[in-house]
Amino acid sequence: MNIEKFQIAEFNNARQSDHQRSFEYTAEKIPNLNDILQKLQDFQVAIPSWALGTGGTRFGRFSGSGEPRNLEEKIADIGLLHALNKSSGAISLHIPWDIPENAAAIKALAAQHDIRFDAVNSNTFQDQPDQALSYKFGSLHHTDKAVRKQAIEHNIEVIRYGMELGSESLTVWLSDGSCFPGQLNFRGAFKRTLESLQEIYAALPDAWKLYIEYKAYEPNFYSTTIGDWGQSLLFASKLGPKAYTLVDLGHHLPNANIEQIVALLLMEGKLAGFHFNDSKYGDDDLTVGSINPYQLFLIFNELVEGMDARGMNHANDLGWMIDASHNVKDPLEDLLQSVEAIMIAYAQALLVDTKALQQAQLNNDAVAAQEILQHAFRTDVRPLVAQARLLSGGVADPVAFYRQFKVREQLIKERGLKTVATGL
Amino acid sequence: MNIEKFQIAEFNNARQSDHQRSFEYTAEKIPNLNDILQKLQDFQVAIPSWALGTGGTRFGRFSGSGEPRNLEEKIADIGLLHALNKSSGAISLHIPWDIPENAAAIKALAAQHDIRFDAVNSNTFQDQPDQALSYKFGSLHHTDKAVRKQAIEHNIEVIRYGMELGSESLTVWLSDGSCFPGQLNFRGAFKRTLESLQEIYAALPDAWKLYIEYKAYEPNFYSTTIGDWGQSLLFASKLGPKAYTLVDLGHHLPNANIEQIVALLLMEGKLAGFHFNDSKYGDDDLTVGSINPYQLFLIFNELVEGMDARGMNHANDLGWMIDASHNVKDPLEDLLQSVEAIMIAYAQALLVDTKALQQAQLNNDAVAAQEILQHAFRTDVRPLVAQARLLSGGVADPVAFYRQFKVREQLIKERGLKTVATGL
Amino acid sequence: MNIEKFQIAEFNNARQSDHQRSFEYTAEKIPNLNDILQKLQDFQVAIPSWALGTGGTRFGRFSGSGEPRNLEEKIADIGLLHALNKSSGAISLHIPWDIPENAAAIKALAAQHDIRFDAVNSNTFQDQPDQALSYKFGSLHHTDKAVRKQAIEHNIEVIRYGMELGSESLTVWLSDGSCFPGQLNFRGAFKRTLESLQEIYAALPDAWKLYIEYKAYEPNFYSTTIGDWGQSLLFASKLGPKAYTLVDLGHHLPNANIEQIVALLLMEGKLAGFHFNDSKYGDDDLTVGSINPYQLFLIFNELVEGMDARGMNHANDLGWMIDASHNVKDPLEDLLQSVEAIMIAYAQALLVDTKALQQAQLNNDAVAAQEILQHAFRTDVRPLVAQARLLSGGVADPVAFYRQFKVREQLIKERGLKTVATGL
Amino acid sequence: MNIEKFQIAEFNNARQSDHQRSFEYTAEKIPNLNDILQKLQDFQVAIPSWALGTGGTRFGRFSGSGEPRNLEEKIADIGLLHALNKSSGAISLHIPWDIPENAAAIKALAAQHDIRFDAVNSNTFQDQPDQALSYKFGSLHHTDKAVRKQAIEHNIEVIRYGMELGSESLTVWLSDGSCFPGQLNFRGAFKRTLESLQEIYAALPDAWKLYIEYKAYEPNFYSTTIGDWGQSLLFASKLGPKAYTLVDLGHHLPNANIEQIVALLLMEGKLAGFHFNDSKYGDDDLTVGSINPYQLFLIFNELVEGMDARGMNHANDLGWMIDASHNVKDPLEDLLQSVEAIMIAYAQALLVDTKALQQAQLNNDAVAAQEILQHAFRTDVRPLVAQARLLSGGVADPVAFYRQFKVREQLIKERGLKTVATGL
Repeated sequence: MNIEKFQIAEFNNARQSDHQRSFEYTAEKIPNLNDILQKLQDFQVAIPSWALGTGGTRFGRFSGSGEPRNLEEKIADIGLLHALNKSSGAISLHIPWDIPENAAAIKALAAQHDIRFDAVNSNTFQDQPDQALSYKFGSLHHTDKAVRKQAIEHNIEVIRYGMELGSESLTVWLSDGSCFPGQLNFRGAFKRTLESLQEIYAALPDAWKLYIEYKAYEPNFYSTTIGDWGQSLLFASKLGPKAYTLVDLGHHLPNANIEQIVALLLMEGKLAGFHFNDSKYGDDDLTVGSINPYQLFLIFNELVEGMDARGMNHANDLGWMIDASHNVKDPLEDLLQSVEAIMIAYAQALLVDTKALQQAQLNNDAVAAQEILQHAFRTDVRPLVAQARLLSGGVADPVAFYRQFKVREQLIKERGLKTVATGL
Repeated sequence: MNIEKFQIAEFNNARQSDHQRSFEYTAEKIPNLNDILQKLQDFQVAIPSWALGTGGTRFGRFSGSGEPRNLEEKIADIGLLHALNKSSGAISLHIPWDIPENAAAIKALAAQHDIRFDAVNSNTFQDQPDQALSYKFGSLHHTDKAVRKQAIEHNIEVIRYGMELGSESLTVWLSDGSCFPGQLNFRGAFKRTLESLQEIYAALPDAWKLYIEYKAYEPNFYSTTIGDWGQSLLFASKLGPKAYTLVDLGHHLPNANIEQIVALLLMEGKLAGFHFNDSKYGDDDLTVGSINPYQLFLIFNELVEGMDARGMNHANDLGWMIDASHNVKDPLEDLLQSVEAIMIAYAQALLVDTKALQQAQLNNDAVAAQEILQHAFRTDVRPLVAQARLLSGGVADPVAFYRQFKVREQLIKERGLKTVATGL
Repeated sequence: MNIEKFQIAEFNNARQSDHQRSFEYTAEKIPNLNDILQKLQDFQVAIPSWALGTGGTRFGRFSGSGEPRNLEEKIADIGLLHALNKSSGAISLHIPWDIPENAAAIKALAAQHDIRFDAVNSNTFQDQPDQALSYKFGSLHHTDKAVRKQAIEHNIEVIRYGMELGSESLTVWLSDGSCFPGQLNFRGAFKRTLESLQEIYAALPDAWKLYIEYKAYEPNFYSTTIGDWGQSLLFASKLGPKAYTLVDLGHHLPNANIEQIVALLLMEGKLAGFHFNDSKYGDDDLTVGSINPYQLFLIFNELVEGMDARGMNHANDLGWMIDASHNVKDPLEDLLQSVEAIMIAYAQALLVDTKALQQAQLNNDAVAAQEILQHAFRTDVRPLVAQARLLSGGVADPVAFYRQFKVREQLIKERGLKTVATGL
Repeated sequence: MNIEKFQIAEFNNARQSDHQRSFEYTAEKIPNLNDILQKLQDFQVAIPSWALGTGGTRFGRFSGSGEPRNLEEKIADIGLLHALNKSSGAISLHIPWDIPENAAAIKALAAQHDIRFDAVNSNTFQDQPDQALSYKFGSLHHTDKAVRKQAIEHNIEVIRYGMELGSESLTVWLSDGSCFPGQLNFRGAFKRTLESLQEIYAALPDAWKLYIEYKAYEPNFYSTTIGDWGQSLLFASKLGPKAYTLVDLGHHLPNANIEQIVALLLMEGKLAGFHFNDSKYGDDDLTVGSINPYQLFLIFNELVEGMDARGMNHANDLGWMIDASHNVKDPLEDLLQSVEAIMIAYAQALLVDTKALQQAQLNNDAVAAQEILQHAFRTDVRPLVAQARLLSGGVADPVAFYRQFKVREQLIKERGLKTVATGL
């Protein structure tokens, strides 16, 4: 299905006067309004190809309906999102769940939807039907050199797919680890992983980056070989200037101060970017901003301040991706909510009075620092985000549009009631 | 020092047109505006007498200046807060840190400031200089009957002090527990505690309530005898209809769903009320709303919905108290920020479209439910809170007033640079 | 395959003198030796029918080989375990994964292996292919009465299956909960669950017990409707004397003091029994005793002391079950290790000098209490456990036997290399 | 008081035959017995000067009796411990709590007790009475250069004290951090800390090491400037070859895999050593091995394997220190239990069949790996530890001796009932 221009116009018109009033009220207090609106328009969040279908847990999976059956339909889904919010103009592909058999055609299709290809993702945490050797006991850290070789070659193959599509980064997330004390020699595992990553690194094209993701636990429940930011940074430092640390918000131990980690990685010039989601207990992969939106804001506060300090470009110099799992929501609605939460947090961070904050910090004035941050956070920035969206041709209220125009019902008609997205 | 009416008027006048514009913009979208404003005006948060001085940790304490040196000065401090925010019209006394030697005079002083006496707090977690028996190994759960007797009598004495002042509830927080496996027989500790509480319960005046606080850990680091809401509820149920469970937000294990606990205690008719604060790791006793304001809103959402379902009076039927420790902030500024955060969360909860939420819940529509809650949370309700405050005679922006009129500097002049609040 | 008596004899003979020396050394310091050996012989741990195949995580599953393809083969597997360790003489069935089509034949088969039927388990956390209504949004707590009815009837059907086999208890574990704030009305969910449980309770035969399991999180990641022991106990209390709380060691928030929970449930006469496993992060379902064996010992210490105080029979008055998931181990080897860890912890707990401990507790002598507990824990009780096993006709070293006689290789020959246990 | 040789002889003689029987039984299964005994004899754990008095929490402190009133008495206390267990032949001094006014005399006193001086500890987390500038908002990270300078000079002064006594390492633990979002610029704090550490590093004598301790939280409750091992390693790497990371077991987020951190720091040649203690919730500072002795064993397993792989000397190449707080135990008894737990874990680790473990790891045989580790852990090694102690002239059972000879009662006679150790 396609979102028609006239539908958008009609929908927006009905909300125009309300929006105008809210926007004017909000805007009049903002000195650098146009700069903020431009930054909001420029900011694009990549949608992972695996997030368009209903996820599941080890206890089961409750499928949705009208889900995309192939890569083309996944791109179409992201096209729908982007048509509505104008902030989802990128896709992050997962290989082998979504192999672009015909790269040229896939590229053309994506271009139609104004979608570029963000980081490509390898998968050595599952066995594929035709796979020679098993990843049951790991991949890049495996004690068996042949398994490592297979995993290295898979990653190099993923780079090739990415090159065909115009990606410029490879995300490596390893589930490699152990479930029981004694199962693994930690040093050995680290060294073998490093050697494997060095071979992958050597195969990276010049302009590419290697994103090294870390995760505290799951699916291994005793140790993970790239378990925290310290380990990821150690790998990235040993590998070289094209290697960076990727932060997935759900991949930490309880109570971790993620914003501090982000600030330090930025300081070291080693922050790759993000897998956004939210969580209450572990890697819950919930909608971004659904559990602790203030933490999300604090992370964006560090990002804005830290990137500005290094003269970085907000939109392009880091990888912005969602990685969530939609077990009880319509995946497209969930993604609309996630992107909205990200844009809101980013807008709030842009509102922070940096100079006043720096002054408060110099004075160790924790009260004033909190007032400054919470003033930005308590400000209702939704009219700003909507204005940026409208300026880019999107809709005033994406979720409302999606429901009013019965998008899912259309997709079910086109694709059927019982569909399972590839890779799920 | 006193806040003069003309100072307030002058301060508010300078902000009047800005406030008016913000208030009108916010108010026009709210159907039950007057009801909400009235509720905000009625809502009073008790200030604990121990929160008016700078706290500390086991690693040290960095005193503030101009801190209250006695109960009279503590009441004066709360009077200042209340004059500014009109939402702090109650005090929660801690015995023996703040013994009202002359109850009539103290009552009169409090009345001057429009302050009533909320729950009185006993202390059997420290040894006082003149104390016969030590609480090193517990109080109400102690293996030695004489220690239990001493602790019971102290609680009964605290009730007497409370009666003289017009309090109607006793909060019992026990640090009783153990630091090492084997140190304690859990069943024995529970039974002895129950017997002790029964004696205290028997001494409660008719109109009084007994608030039983729980805490997961600290200062005991292996077990706490009233360690979670389940244990507190078990005690409250065995004691009788005047016994309730008190929730301190910082007294839980990591990731606990506190709002669910609140909802269930309300359902059982056994919720006493709150000790408000915020935390990232443990019982950090930080400013309310400084770490996770969305959680605070979710708790108030349960409170509003649950109290309304039972026909309860928001302002009077539960105990609303702050329990924080101000290690790096001016205690009065910290309390102003805490009360503001509470009022904001309450106002947001009052904005929730309950009917729409119930409909979404019936439909298992998690997307709509989130939209409804986050709409309320994302609304900037500060103008509503300010309006309620202004209607009650308070100031538009309490922290700004406090700083502009150099309140702390005045207090230092009156009390001295080096003061230590009693009990600290 | 069958373990032959002569194989056992041969295996044990080769180890006899070593064992005898170790046993004598260990035994001579134990006053109540025969009582302890008898208790160890009597103690039987039920094996869940779902634990005989390789488990998995949401990220994938790496199948094992020679796994049981049906209920008969599962019983045969447990028969193997029991022949080796003489402590696995019970099975806990999961419906509908393991429906006993011909109850009489299944009963006879189990009897051949000296296996009785422990608690039967219902499953309303997954949708079965032929199921009319979905459990996507819960079962016993569902807002739709028809879904609740379906789930209630399933539970009653499970009771019927259990009655045919001689079970006397039903375990209800609900995944019912919510993933997002607002999705669920907590009170409504509690009340609907209670009503549903009341209907199931009404269908319980006289001698039966209802085991109500709780879990903090997963597969729902915001709230679980029976989320902690307090909630489970609330349900059990409202339901009546046949309802009890079941403790799964992995179902708690980080750092929970499980042994205290166990002691209090025993005190209240409401402890159903256990799902044993171990974990480092969440519900990791690792081999019992593989992460924190001291905690397991502390739990058994509470059990022995608490059951003795109530005059309970260790072997029969509570339900002893394993609930683990074997992702990287041979499931049968894993279960042998789990049962061994349980027997060791139980034996250590039986060694505790209760009188001396009580005296230390009376004196608040934490040093002595620790010495007493750690003396028992540091004692190498493996010779005692082995002796009890040998007296019952088992083997000296079950894992060694299993490997020496190549049991898995035999099973692969019989069943094939690629098998998937039902329900996985 | 002094422990007399004849008292030791008498005490040991009474236990000799029992010990001999246990030792022989244990020893006969150990191939490299003498090597293990020698290593156990060589291993010395430093006692921190602040651990000889009763600790406390922010809720209060319950003093003990007969506690040391000055450094001389603290050394005497450690002398008592060492006379009993022959494994406490080192002291770790805290400045300014224990300033050695007369270094020569203090050195001579320590030498009498066969005690050497391990790492010296600076303190910039508290304000001392005569201190010019406050550490309320940090020390080495402070925004005010003058405060940083004061803190740097204090550290250099501590080095000087250490040089006089023969110490060769400085432990820096900073409480520097923040309690509220916004209070601190993380990058700025890191950079200022680095500069400060560089000045201290420059003042280190050639043979000295700088130990950089990290801690997740407390006494700051939002961020800590050296918060985890990754941050500490970053500092240590930037500083140079004499800077190392110190691991305090209680300074981690919940569920952290400490043994993996230890293995990786060893791999990087950057492990300084340990502050041993145990904990259930946070930095509980409980007796070593009192909560999770298996974790302690797993850490020692990594240490033994990793040090052997690098050809390191177990006794000398890392710093072994206790850092616990004794709130409800006699400090000396607590320390005896802590050292015993360390020796037991070390002995168990020495028993691990490394070759068999490596083979199991190569085969990804998690079952065998667990059997190997748990065989070592389940072995009762107390007779080995006792034998090493006896060979060194210590007593068979230190806690029993301490009680039998009423050591505390003697100390109370000498020092008085009400004493408070310096620094507490």
